[in-house]
Parts: sequence; C-alpha cells; structure tokens
Amino acid sequence: MTSERKGIDPEKLTDFTLRVLNKAGIPEGDAKIAAQILVATDLRGIDSHGVGHLAMYVRNIRSGRTNPDPKTKITSNAASTAVMDGDRGFGLVVGYRAMTEAMRRAEETGAGFVTVRNSSHYGAGGNYAMMALPRDMIGISMTVGGMGMVAPGSVGQGVTINVLSVAAPSNQEAPFVLDMATTVVAAGKIEIAAREGKSLPEGWAVDKEGKPITDPRQFYQGGALLPMGGSPQTGSYKGFGLAVAVDILCRILSGAVPDQQYGGSHFFGALRIDGFMPVDQFRKAMDGMIQQYRELPKAPGIDRIYISGEVEQEIEKKRRAEGIPLHPAIIKSLEDIANELGVEYDL
Amino acid sequence: MTSERKGIDPEKLTDFTLRVLNKAGIPEGDAKIAAQILVATDLRGIDSHGVGHLAMYVRNIRSGRTNPDPKTKITSNAASTAVMDGDRGFGLVVGYRAMTEAMRRAEETGAGFVTVRNSSHYGAGGNYAMMALPRDMIGISMTVGGMGMVAPGSVGQGVTINVLSVAAPSNQEAPFVLDMATTVVAAGKIEIAAREGKSLPEGWAVDKEGKPITDPRQFYQGGALLPMGGSPQTGSYKGFGLAVAVDILCRILSGAVPDQQYGGSHFFGALRIDGFMPVDQFRKAMDGMIQQYRELPKAPGIDRIYISGEVEQEIEKKRRAEGIPLHPAIIKSLEDIANELGVEYDL
Repeated sequence: MTSERKGIDPEKLTDFTLRVLNKAGIPEGDAKIAAQILVATDLRGIDSHGVGHLAMYVRNIRSGRTNPDPKTKITSNAASTAVMDGDRGFGLVVGYRAMTEAMRRAEETGAGFVTVRNSSHYGAGGNYAMMALPRDMIGISMTVGGMGMVAPGSVGQGVTINVLSVAAPSNQEAPFVLDMATTVVAAGKIEIAAREGKSLPEGWAVDKEGKPITDPRQFYQGGALLPMGGSPQTGSYKGFGLAVAVDILCRILSGAVPDQQYGGSHFFGALRIDGFMPVDQFRKAMDGMIQQYRELPKAPGIDRIYISGEVEQEIEKKRRAEGIPLHPAIIKSLEDIANELGVEYDL
Repeated sequence: MTSERKGIDPEKLTDFTLRVLNKAGIPEGDAKIAAQILVATDLRGIDSHGVGHLAMYVRNIRSGRTNPDPKTKITSNAASTAVMDGDRGFGLVVGYRAMTEAMRRAEETGAGFVTVRNSSHYGAGGNYAMMALPRDMIGISMTVGGMGMVAPGSVGQGVTINVLSVAAPSNQEAPFVLDMATTVVAAGKIEIAAREGKSLPEGWAVDKEGKPITDPRQFYQGGALLPMGGSPQTGSYKGFGLAVAVDILCRILSGAVPDQQYGGSHFFGALRIDGFMPVDQFRKAMDGMIQQYRELPKAPGIDRIYISGEVEQEIEKKRRAEGIPLHPAIIKSLEDIANELGVEYDL
C-alpha cells in the first residue's frame, strides 16, 4: 500500500453500496447497476462523484424526492431518436436505461439518441459514454447539473453546471474519455477545497458581485463558478455556449422545460463505428493518434502528455491493485448511512 | 451609412464571388453555393472567414491543391451514418453536400451523421449547422483546421485548430448558433491583430518556448494558440479534449488518418426535432430559455446578455440594410483576383 489512506476493496465497496441502495428502496437489479457505476467512478479517481454522494442519494430517496422504483417511459417518432421520462428515478438507473436504449437504436440504424426528463443527479457523465466502448460505438453523455455558473455579463448563479462527455474506443491505448463540466472546474472541486480548508486557484470562481475569489466559502455566499474560458476576452462565451447547447439537448429537447425547470435532464448518444468504417481500422487509428500526441515535444518539467482518459485509466489500475483510498469524511458518511439504515458496515 | 467603410451590397458581392469561383474552374451551381456561404459569413460579421479568404481559395484551385469539380463519393453501412470522400474538393462545396446528406438521413431515421475526408478549408463551421434550421433540425458541424494549437504540457504547434458548431431553431428569438474553435480564439483573430498592428490580449497565445505573448508576430515564429481554458489549472485539458474529440469524429471516423494526415476533414450531424417532440413546443421553449438568460441580473456596465448567435443576427440585420463594410485589405485582394482572372470588378 503506497497510499496513506486505507485502500478499500472495490468488490466489497460495490457490495456495500448495493446493499445500502437496496435497503433504501431501490430494487436489487437497479441497485447493482448504480453501485457498479459509483465504484467505477471512484476506481477512476473521480472522487467527487463516487460513493461520496451515496449519503445524498439515500437522503433524496428517503425524503421522497427520488423515486426508488421508477416506471421509465419511452416515446419516439423516429428510428434513431427517443425521449425518456425518468419518473423522478435515481439518475444512475435512469441514465443506464437511457444509454442502453440509445445503443439499441444505434445497433439498428447506426446512430441512437435519447434525451431524458424527470431524472435526478446521475453521477459522473463519463460512465454512460463509456458504456459504448465494449459495443464498438462512440458514446456521448450530457447532463444539466445544479445551479452554479455565472453567465458572461451577469452576476450570481444564473446557469446550471452542465456536463459533456465523449468516449471512443482504442486498441492497445487507453480509450479516449472526455468528461468535462462546462464551467472552469466542476463544483465538486470547490467542495473538496472547502472541506480541506484550501484556497482556490484564481480564475475558478467569482463572488456575488462578480469579483474573482480564492476563498471557497465566498462561493457559497452568492458566488458562482466561471464558464469554461474564464473571462469574455479568453472565451467564456464558448463555455456559456456549450452550457446552453447541453441545456437544449437535455432540457428543451426532452420537454423538461417549462414544467421541470432544473430537475435532472440528460442526453445520451451512440454512434456505431462500423456504420462508418471497419472497427479494427478505427481502433488502430486511435492508438496512432494517441501515440502521436504523446510524442509531442515536452515543456520543461513535463514527463508526459496525457490524452483525456489516460490519467483515469492509470488510477484505475493502481486502485484495482491497492484498493480505493476513500477520504475519511466519506468513510464516516458511509458508516453513518449504514447505521441509519441498519446495513452491515464491513469495509 | 454609419460605418466609415463602404457598405457593399450582399447580392452584388455574392454575384462577384460566384463569377470569380466559376472563372477559377468551379461549376456554376457549386460556385453559387460557395458564394452564398461566404457572403452569409460576412453578413453575420465573421469577417475572418468570409470573402477575405477568396484569394486563398482561388490560389488553392489554381495550384491544383483543390479539385474544382470533385466527384464526391458516399459509403455507408447504416441508415443514419455515412462517410464522404471529398475528392480533394472545395471545402464549402463538399461541406454543403455532406450536410445535405446528413439531413437526408435525418429525415428518414431522425438522426443523420456524415464524416468527411479529403476535403479542404470549409470556411465558418456555423454555416453548415445552420442549414438544419429551416428543416426543423438541430445541426452539428465540426472541422479539423490547420496546425496551430499547443497541447497542455507541450511546446509549439502540435494540435490542429479545430472547430465545433451547434445550431438550434427558436421561434421569435434568434436561433442558437454556437460556432467556436477549440482554441482560446480562432487563428483569424491573430491574423486580424497582425494585419492591424495591434497587440494580443494575454491568455491567447504562447511563443515557441511556451511563454505568454502579446505580439502577434511571435505567433508566426513558432508560437501557438492556447487550448480553450488557457492553462492546465483553468481547464486547458478540456479545450485539448474537445479538440481531440473533433479529431476523432472528423479524421479517424472518416478514415482520413493515417493517409491524409492534416487535410480537410469534417463531421456533420442533424437531429430531426419532431423525432423527439413537437417542433412548435421546441421552438417556443427555446424562446423561453433565451429570454430567461437575457433577464439575468447584469454586471456593472453591461446592457445586455447575449446568447450564441444573437450578436451575429444583429450584425446581419444591419449589414443587410447598410451593406457589408469590407476591410480595405480585403477589397484590395478582391480587385487583385478580379484582375488576375479577368473577371469584372463591380463592387
């Protein structure tokens, strides 16, 4: 063990998470899907979106905000496209079903797109885009997040923190997995800084008057995250534009607005690679591209150039071998949920 | 006329551009399509991508680099997806054909995607995404551009300047049209600053050693544009990741690599709105969203919050009324091409 934190076995963590979700009211099959998604997120080092959110999810189920057993419904007027009503279900379960439906349609026509309304927080967007990889497809996943971004020219939180993810398979190299918020950083990074008492780098957030801040506490006092690009001069209208594009595909195209103003809305897409070209050729060309970028001249002090998804794959290898080093605050939250629900804590 | 420059009639400019392209060897129908795209770009105020490039296009045709009469070829293994070989054609003509094909497939299945290899510079990406608007579709357009971006952790130009565009129709409001390079700014902005002898804002570009620059001349001495996001701390890996995603869809999925390393490769998509929901409902919800963003609290000194596409629509209204105020250097270049080709200059 090289980590100072205890490495938790991913299988045991999945089983524990499954039991918690199941006890909270989610049917076993769905609980298993959600547990696997959450632990996969932690395995890949995206600590802000893994089992650290389990307490929040359970709270939302127990308060009645999230429907633990949703009757999701699909409507469609075309072979390649559909809308899913998530029936206020758990976002990880609804997202899994919707991406599965997008891939089913892509099997038939080459492309499948499903937009989703009435869902809830779906965790890390990359998980759904990555579902396409073993199916030899390119995967797309988007979601509308909670309020938190300032629009260029505005002050305060007026735009949701949206997420865009694209995944494409390679051959020997790590698959390409882009998973990004349309803000400079995800809100989870502010949470982590606040929890650890650290200050924020400049360029992440502003206070309620639009002035730059480095104290994470000011974010929670009417502050906001900047759009990707930072200031208008360095392209914040692009980050805002991407956020609105995600809004359109998730909230408008699914019929979530005006009735369901800021609820969980997602958008999923799948493109079957062999609808365009032979899969082997594609995977090998991906390897070639990744290697070409890796071989670019390095800036002083840089050992390696990383393509989206490579760092996460390295972390996953390490964590599969050594366990997942959960933050003590997260371990505490898991113990608390276990106690609250009467589930055995065995991690 | 409020502009100090002479406003050129868009009809006359289209006719002139058509005649120049036709004289250079492009068949009349294709020349008309390309002329309309170029003038539409100038009408929308995207001066870096309109008729200012005409001389370059003609040069590429006359040197044999661009095929003026391409026999574009479509291959496909699925109803919703296809690959187009552009036969080294003029990007504006190839792009128009490929987007038309994507929309034809979207008519049938709800979604259509066409990736393109062996094309050339296709102008402003928004033009093709906007072709979807009158068809009640959401349009997507991407292209690989010329070398010019530095990868995070690298020095020098190692990544192409890629472009991503999304367009969606509204009702009374301007349509949403996002049209962005995955760099902090498009290379055209550096060209304009160099031409006008102005310095660059900080955060746009670096010199050959990776140090920030404000002198546009240093960009042309081994410098590079920064990815959207600027530095790794403020999300440059997102801009790089978006650039690679565009690479994958344009160059890898079309089979452009490894044979055609950095030639013109594009990607087009169309989603038929009524495959998801009623078009009227969508358009009205778009208006509602745009109005909601417009009504956000304004920062001091800000009169209005703009959504992607609104500024361009305002410029278009003005230019349709007052003519297009081309830069004197561009007018000179048009006169020179007219002389060179023996085409009457009547602007």
